[in-house]
Amino acid sequence: MSETAARPAGIDPELARLRRSIDNIDAALIHVLAERFKATQQVGMLKAELGMPASDPVREATQLARMRELARDAELDPVFAEKFLAFLLAEVIQHHEAIALDRAQDRVVDGAPLA
Amino acid sequence: MSETAARPAGIDPELARLRRSIDNIDAALIHVLAERFKATQQVGMLKAELGMPASDPVREATQLARMRELARDAELDPVFAEKFLAFLLAEVIQHHEAIALDRAQDRVVDGAPLA
Repeated sequence: MSETAARPAGIDPELARLRRSIDNIDAALIHVLAERFKATQQVGMLKAELGMPASDPVREATQLARMRELARDAELDPVFAEKFLAFLLAEVIQHHEAIALDRAQDRVVDGAPLA
Repeated sequence: MSETAARPAGIDPELARLRRSIDNIDAALIHVLAERFKATQQVGMLKAELGMPASDPVREATQLARMRELARDAELDPVFAEKFLAFLLAEVIQHHEAIALDRAQDRVVDGAPLA
């Protein structure tokens, strides 16, 4: 009976059960994504330090092939996995470029302009 | 020395280390996303059975507020979390609509057209 009390009125119990699982999964996704961006933030700083470009087509092709294979093993649509990687990479490359720009501006302020 | 041997030639060791972590994180993300789509697939079938619309603005608003809060707690950009939810929902709603259409077509084939 306590389960009934915790459920919003008028929601199908099976739908409510599935939504609770989806909410748990989303919490996991957000926390794992937070760790991914911590790692890519470090990559961005390292690339700026080494003067490497924000994007790396060879690395991205390797990631793409791997994501598609992982998706097939996990019974996830490989086309969705591909879209997901593109979505993440767009965000990451934007961050990398912002880091590189910050570094370049710091150099100008320090009296050592790039040009 | 064995670490040097396992590393692709010319890649900075710190960059290689970060990329190995990102690859592990991506494998986790793909597997968790696969479970999310299994759950939303069940939601889609249930909604089609109950004659519910594919999208639910009240549920989506609740999810959005929750994702932003989870993101803040996890030190992830809440704006990115919002974009991520929109990305997932677009895919899920497309699946729900496909399921509802399949069901409607099955009904026509069974000799019980909707109209």
